[in-house]
Amino acid sequence: MNINDLINHTGEWLKGKGSHADIVMSSRVRLARNLAKRPFPNRAQKRELEDIMEEARAAVGKIDLLKKCEFIRLNDIDQIDKQILVERHLMSHEHAANTLGKALVLSKEEAISIMVNEEDHLRMQVMQSGLNLDDTFALVSGIDDELSKYLDFGYSMHWGYLTACPTNTGTGMRGSVMLHLPALVMTKQINKVLTAVNKLSFTSRGFYGEGTQASGNFFQISNQVSMGQSEVDIIQNINGLIRQIVDQEEQARQALLVQNRPMLEDKIHRSYGILKSAYLISSQETVELLSLVRLGIDLGIIRDLDRRLVNDLFIRIQPAHLQKIEGKKLNASDRDAKRASVIREKLTPNGH
Amino acid sequence: MNINDLINHTGEWLKGKGSHADIVMSSRVRLARNLAKRPFPNRAQKRELEDIMEEARAAVGKIDLLKKCEFIRLNDIDQIDKQILVERHLMSHEHAANTLGKALVLSKEEAISIMVNEEDHLRMQVMQSGLNLDDTFALVSGIDDELSKYLDFGYSMHWGYLTACPTNTGTGMRGSVMLHLPALVMTKQINKVLTAVNKLSFTSRGFYGEGTQASGNFFQISNQVSMGQSEVDIIQNINGLIRQIVDQEEQARQALLVQNRPMLEDKIHRSYGILKSAYLISSQETVELLSLVRLGIDLGIIRDLDRRLVNDLFIRIQPAHLQKIEGKKLNASDRDAKRASVIREKLTPNGH
Repeated sequence: MNINDLINHTGEWLKGKGSHADIVMSSRVRLARNLAKRPFPNRAQKRELEDIMEEARAAVGKIDLLKKCEFIRLNDIDQIDKQILVERHLMSHEHAANTLGKALVLSKEEAISIMVNEEDHLRMQVMQSGLNLDDTFALVSGIDDELSKYLDFGYSMHWGYLTACPTNTGTGMRGSVMLHLPALVMTKQINKVLTAVNKLSFTSRGFYGEGTQASGNFFQISNQVSMGQSEVDIIQNINGLIRQIVDQEEQARQALLVQNRPMLEDKIHRSYGILKSAYLISSQETVELLSLVRLGIDLGIIRDLDRRLVNDLFIRIQPAHLQKIEGKKLNASDRDAKRASVIREKLTPNGH
Repeated sequence: MNINDLINHTGEWLKGKGSHADIVMSSRVRLARNLAKRPFPNRAQKRELEDIMEEARAAVGKIDLLKKCEFIRLNDIDQIDKQILVERHLMSHEHAANTLGKALVLSKEEAISIMVNEEDHLRMQVMQSGLNLDDTFALVSGIDDELSKYLDFGYSMHWGYLTACPTNTGTGMRGSVMLHLPALVMTKQINKVLTAVNKLSFTSRGFYGEGTQASGNFFQISNQVSMGQSEVDIIQNINGLIRQIVDQEEQARQALLVQNRPMLEDKIHRSYGILKSAYLISSQETVELLSLVRLGIDLGIIRDLDRRLVNDLFIRIQPAHLQKIEGKKLNASDRDAKRASVIREKLTPNGH
């Protein structure tokens, strides 16, 4: 696989399919695992990191589930390509920053990605479109089972899986769901929802990952506690919480349609109109307008556009993607122009 | 003629043709005349107003230039229709307000309109597209000559034509030109220009007439002094001033293109995009966006749209026009919806 193939393609988690795909963009489960007899990456020497990477590569090669995956040494690819992997939610910012002894195992459809030597030796991630934590968990769990035949994972009978940071110890699992909640934001109910989320020991982050602000009305909800509960219980708890939030968003959408339809239609059609016609546009404005267009598709107000295309645009309008498409480095104002042109092309296929 | 025909038609002065039609929307000359032996309208009784009206009607009927004109008694038409005549710049707000003994003589192409018993007994107006004060003056002057064969106009060898308000005494003439000056506004040179206009004893008003603020970057420039100069001198002075302003606007447009083309293209295309997609829009926002679209046509940035259609929209989006098109009274928020739908229909003829 090369990164050019990646950007001409829509990741599995962006396909806009699956249960509640109007409100639930995607489901993700990751497991943190470490090799028992090796120091955690932040304590390991270069040589040890290389050994761990080789051990991981050998194990990956033996497993049917990962047979079609590519094993990418991050030192072998350039800065833009690393950034593209980050922008596609396939690895963390940190994993791209210092790439010594680091790798990424990546499936063609981008459903599976395994960071090697990030904070833990292995961070296995599976992402799917829609609300589908059960299948997502089943797949990552299967990968974990297979890998554990060839790798000796650090595990304590008392603590569970051992991890570099104690917040991940136990199951080493984090389940998260990317929610699109424009109606809860418009009706000003979102803070009440997020307060409840935090009280229940879940966290909320923005679309663009840890430390990012909510933008485009996206909220990524995940479990904070990975210890003292089984994986299945954690998944069940997240599912229960998400179903409640989905219900509330659905109610808020219906209320908006009943009480404010003309205002809503105007906002949505204008957003679509601006995206189709702008020649300079910031990523912040793009995300806000795309959010309204996505809502318009969900509500049947926009009928000539596919949710998948909009989902994909949220990814494609980021800096590294724009530079990859253009084939060269772009400064901020060049990116605003390129972003506008990419959006126009996608939204008006027959040209302007 | 009925008013329905009027709104399905573009007035002569909106056709977007003639000299400097990119910057000069239209040229207008009006003459104020009064019957010598009659009191001014504000001093006349109902019976006298009726007599004046009849006298005017009889004279109009004898003149070739006015043969195809309609003589409309304002008491015979309803409030919306009167308002439509105001919105089309064919008569004043005041003329529509108290219609006792008042009439309007109107040519089919809306080039000629004569208010009977407004402030003066006769206010003859001719409007043409582009910078064309000479022809405009020639036509109104011809009408004046013909009418004076049948009507005894009040005239003093010392003061010239006598009028109800002394500011019009002398030639009774006002020449005015509607200028579209978006580049002078954007480059913040407009105040300097308007200051010079006032120093030269000209006045500037907005698109929507006396007492209206400049909106949509339109400025209507007219002579303030009607005495002590011949008609030809006044026209020549206006022409000289307008040519200077047109030059400055042209230079400002070129400077914007050279220095800020991407910003300008973005603003223009967005304006067009919003107009094509909004479902609720105020008249203020419409006028601002149409102004940028008009500039886009002038600069060749928008190529699929005719200036005439945009000129016509400035008129068509006003309250009485919207209500006439809809066939019933509309409140402000209904008008915002109707306005948006009229604009969408005009700008995207093949539907949405």
